[in-house]
Amino acid sequence: MVRIAVDMDEVIADYVAKELLAYNNHFGTEYTKADLQGRKLRQIHPEHTKIIRALVGKEDHFADFEVIEGAQEGLKKLAEKHEVFIATAAMEIPTCFNAKYAWLQTHFTFIPDDNYVFCGDKSIINADYLIDDHIRHLDTFKGTGILFAAPHNYHETYDIKLNNWQEVVAFFEDRY
Amino acid sequence: MVRIAVDMDEVIADYVAKELLAYNNHFGTEYTKADLQGRKLRQIHPEHTKIIRALVGKEDHFADFEVIEGAQEGLKKLAEKHEVFIATAAMEIPTCFNAKYAWLQTHFTFIPDDNYVFCGDKSIINADYLIDDHIRHLDTFKGTGILFAAPHNYHETYDIKLNNWQEVVAFFEDRY
Repeated sequence: MVRIAVDMDEVIADYVAKELLAYNNHFGTEYTKADLQGRKLRQIHPEHTKIIRALVGKEDHFADFEVIEGAQEGLKKLAEKHEVFIATAAMEIPTCFNAKYAWLQTHFTFIPDDNYVFCGDKSIINADYLIDDHIRHLDTFKGTGILFAAPHNYHETYDIKLNNWQEVVAFFEDRY
Repeated sequence: MVRIAVDMDEVIADYVAKELLAYNNHFGTEYTKADLQGRKLRQIHPEHTKIIRALVGKEDHFADFEVIEGAQEGLKKLAEKHEVFIATAAMEIPTCFNAKYAWLQTHFTFIPDDNYVFCGDKSIINADYLIDDHIRHLDTFKGTGILFAAPHNYHETYDIKLNNWQEVVAFFEDRY
């Protein structure tokens, strides 16, 4: 049994889909995930950075994120054999605490809330693996980092980069 | 430089004072900290456990805690030389997230929010030291645990038990 810490946004929660929805609703645009390969919305429209922050900072913004495809089944499988923690960088948008907690309670009932970690700097996480979509978090993590593919990291490479939850499950089944 | 994780309730935030105030206001009693040596309010009045939970579960309950004596000066001294994280078990009372965040932003401005950790099981904390008032948290922590004296642990002993922030500062000045 190993301990696996799993990031929330872009790994189990579809952050980008909701950000696009909020942005398109606000500006009447029609951006899709295909437009975000290798870049973030605020890199396409730096002049809208403040508005984007306000949109994703609304108290209920995080409440109705879609679950990333395969995340429920995948995490359930990992949790049968391993210790699973959810480690989310919640301090950038502190309005999100309650919505994130409620979302986890709704969609990942098999993970006890004792295993949630709302943090900033992920070097504080004591686990064997961290699955995250940001290399900057993996770089300060003391265990083995796994980069989870997301639109914004499309052009980035990493020792272990996995494209979806099927690949994550297969990775751990191979190793353990 | 070492990394020191510091618990919130009863270590830097005076949880008991506010609990007593809420309880005394509700029941017209006059309990003081002296009544709580070695026991918790809900052990004196197990029949009021639900009411106590409701009182401390109010959204703003955590907003106006007093700072534990010496905690600001003490943490400031530690932070000059070491890396300081706040690691608080926030999942038992999830209504407390926003109030705890705001409280830290008000009273401990010198600790960046990147160094806050809201968690359940503290075995997830990767640090050299954990200062906590609960032996159960220290027992699963992988580094060196320091028991911080609080009314409820009055009769408990531990390898390293420190009685106040002056003793904490002296402990680290002796070692580093």
